[in-house]
Amino acid sequence: MLNQRIVEILRNGKPDESLKVKGWVRTKRELKGFAFIEINDGSSLANLQVVINQDLPDYENILKKLNTGASVEVSGILVASPAKGQRIELKADSVKVYGEADPETYPLQKKRHSFEFLRTIGHLRSRTNSFGAVFRVRNACATAIHQFFQERGFMWVHTPIITASDCEGAGELFSVTSLDLKNIPRTENQAVDYSKDFFARPTYLTVSGQLEAEIMAMAFSNVYTFGPTFRAENSNTSRHLAEFWMVEPEMAFCDLHGDMDLAEEFLKYIFKYVLEKCPEDMEFFNQRIDNTVLATADNIINNQFERITYTEAIKLLEKADVQFDYPVSWGLDLQSEHERYLCEQLFKKTVIVTDYPAQIKAFYMRLNDDEKTVAAMDILAPKIGEIIGGSQREERLEVLEKRVLAQGMKLEDLWWYLDLRRYGTVPHAGFGLGFERLVQFMTGMGNIRDVIPFPRTPESAEF
Amino acid sequence: MLNQRIVEILRNGKPDESLKVKGWVRTKRELKGFAFIEINDGSSLANLQVVINQDLPDYENILKKLNTGASVEVSGILVASPAKGQRIELKADSVKVYGEADPETYPLQKKRHSFEFLRTIGHLRSRTNSFGAVFRVRNACATAIHQFFQERGFMWVHTPIITASDCEGAGELFSVTSLDLKNIPRTENQAVDYSKDFFARPTYLTVSGQLEAEIMAMAFSNVYTFGPTFRAENSNTSRHLAEFWMVEPEMAFCDLHGDMDLAEEFLKYIFKYVLEKCPEDMEFFNQRIDNTVLATADNIINNQFERITYTEAIKLLEKADVQFDYPVSWGLDLQSEHERYLCEQLFKKTVIVTDYPAQIKAFYMRLNDDEKTVAAMDILAPKIGEIIGGSQREERLEVLEKRVLAQGMKLEDLWWYLDLRRYGTVPHAGFGLGFERLVQFMTGMGNIRDVIPFPRTPESAEF
Repeated sequence: MLNQRIVEILRNGKPDESLKVKGWVRTKRELKGFAFIEINDGSSLANLQVVINQDLPDYENILKKLNTGASVEVSGILVASPAKGQRIELKADSVKVYGEADPETYPLQKKRHSFEFLRTIGHLRSRTNSFGAVFRVRNACATAIHQFFQERGFMWVHTPIITASDCEGAGELFSVTSLDLKNIPRTENQAVDYSKDFFARPTYLTVSGQLEAEIMAMAFSNVYTFGPTFRAENSNTSRHLAEFWMVEPEMAFCDLHGDMDLAEEFLKYIFKYVLEKCPEDMEFFNQRIDNTVLATADNIINNQFERITYTEAIKLLEKADVQFDYPVSWGLDLQSEHERYLCEQLFKKTVIVTDYPAQIKAFYMRLNDDEKTVAAMDILAPKIGEIIGGSQREERLEVLEKRVLAQGMKLEDLWWYLDLRRYGTVPHAGFGLGFERLVQFMTGMGNIRDVIPFPRTPESAEF
Repeated sequence: MLNQRIVEILRNGKPDESLKVKGWVRTKRELKGFAFIEINDGSSLANLQVVINQDLPDYENILKKLNTGASVEVSGILVASPAKGQRIELKADSVKVYGEADPETYPLQKKRHSFEFLRTIGHLRSRTNSFGAVFRVRNACATAIHQFFQERGFMWVHTPIITASDCEGAGELFSVTSLDLKNIPRTENQAVDYSKDFFARPTYLTVSGQLEAEIMAMAFSNVYTFGPTFRAENSNTSRHLAEFWMVEPEMAFCDLHGDMDLAEEFLKYIFKYVLEKCPEDMEFFNQRIDNTVLATADNIINNQFERITYTEAIKLLEKADVQFDYPVSWGLDLQSEHERYLCEQLFKKTVIVTDYPAQIKAFYMRLNDDEKTVAAMDILAPKIGEIIGGSQREERLEVLEKRVLAQGMKLEDLWWYLDLRRYGTVPHAGFGLGFERLVQFMTGMGNIRDVIPFPRTPESAEF
């Protein structure tokens, strides 16, 4: 029932095979007595070349319609291609044009367009080589993630998007409301009357599914989230999105070592999977976008990640023969320049830094015996910096309660989270991966807005 | 690195094998000189029976801690079990208790709890047999969905959650804002000053990813969404959630027949997959929740779906020897009682109704040549009613523009959607599946709040 895809034809099509192909015209070259049309259907970077001879009925008229962007159905016979760089081409018996694309107004003409311009036509940019490759790689990454976890018996859990809890403290929140903003109801003392709101309380868009994933791990042992998360931070940078997808595995009966082992295996698995499924797209990125992406992938796959403690990292940075903008001292968070020094200059590979000072990490991370550091880990990759952050979670009720209170939060707001430590608590650990950061890392794309189909950023929510 | 899961031990474990298992105590039975402990780790409905002999060091003390809900690590040797209904059991050499669960306060004691009560302890309910089975089946459904589409070369696309477009018209919308609700900024003429809001315009939570999926299908031919969608409808029923997951495939070069073929293949695939992966959980639902679920699954898998037009359906309903609450006449939407009559009484199987009157369907559905009906289809399943709704999309620019205007919408709000018809338009089609409805259907669970981990409903956004 489904049509034959160009990726399959290019890979397995045999000369003399009759077939029908449907797609969009990328280019047209008219020569004396015949024309070459390149057709793409989104299944691969490479186009299928179609040869149309002038003896085709209505040749002149059809050819006039076959401009870049036109949609067509071509029937014909595969023949060995005399041209370089392609094994086969399609000799057309009949060509049907579904929809034209006026060359005077269709924005995607043959010339190169800047990524900035293409963002303004987000409904068309996926039809270009670069965005075609990006979204095929994105899909391969996503599929690799599900496959990795499902093969290992992890359950995909859907944690809520709308949440009444603002205690993750990971940044500014978007409010979700059914109230009329023009006419917010008030209580007697002029507060917002949330009893009239849909959930009868203030609600927000989630910043992380971790706390709920912990609930599920306490029943199913190994789970992961893979869903959208949000930040209302007004950061107009090439690394920030207001809406992005996150992957958060959570494992019961697991400590920080198990957590690191899983994270390393996970990253290697994804890179191998994408290289295997999208070799042509990855080659394209290496040639056109960033000539280090294949070397980086190779580095990730074939090297054991270096593991050092934060305290060791600080010593190495203090000894470094480099002038940092932010001077280093124990207790301060690592800056991008420090992270890049460690993995790009010093170890020349991916580095996992563990056991950070408690005061710069979240309340749920497990306090180490030194009572100064927590069982946290950040995975720092060459070129991109932090790609994964994780920790063993504090499973001891009293220790957790102290840390909650120390951060000025209320125990009653976290009653259910604390219950997990009250009833059948176990050592457990997990990590978070920003999915778009991963796709950026994989493809070398410089701006995070170009690795998600419809980016949400300050003052921009188009399409 | 990961621990051995109980599902694997029960399936493949051999007598005399030494192993370590980690999980939570479900029940304890003390006998003279020894005790039986049932351990569950969430990987299966069945527990692993552990036999603890009184010669275990510290026997009395450990036994006191092994109450329902306690977390343990048990090492021992597998032995053939003399008990009925289980092949093997674990003879404990050592037992370590990670965390206790005080039987005085832990809410999940052995007695049966109502689903209503369990909703109030959403952080613990996954530890029960019913919710364990529900979420394993949910995960299997989700995995089947990805596998089905990926095997067929469909791309998973992440359509935006936050949207500035309110033109899908599928119901009431939640607003998303970074404005302070206590102090909404105003323009000179007292309107809400959206220039101060994060996106500098009103934004909402999406009700569907379809329109954006169409964008992606026009570049990649076959795509699907699988993500959260929202409705701010104040419906306190067993069939409505404010936040739910939806699956929406979209296929270029596809008409209504192709759409129906895919949808039928898709449903059959998911049911087969779940029966194969979760036979024990499905048996449980059939015994404890709804004794028709296995027969229904069999009916779905082994019968060709009946396909009739809306006009035929109306005739059949008019002839029916049944008193309907809502009288039937051409032009009215089918009610649940009509849908159930068709598939439960008349055809006794799944029915696809096609070609509905244009005026009761959305603007984007393709107008048929009769100019009265549209190329829509609803799949009606026994017991649950509408499970899938889909259509061929209107690909003709002028026809679509007329329908947009006829519904009182503005062309400029849909500029990018119309552009898809302006440049390289193709016949295309797709459908939507409410994921929680599917899980309800599969498991026989009566209330939709019991098939999603953390339901969002009017006045409720706990956890």
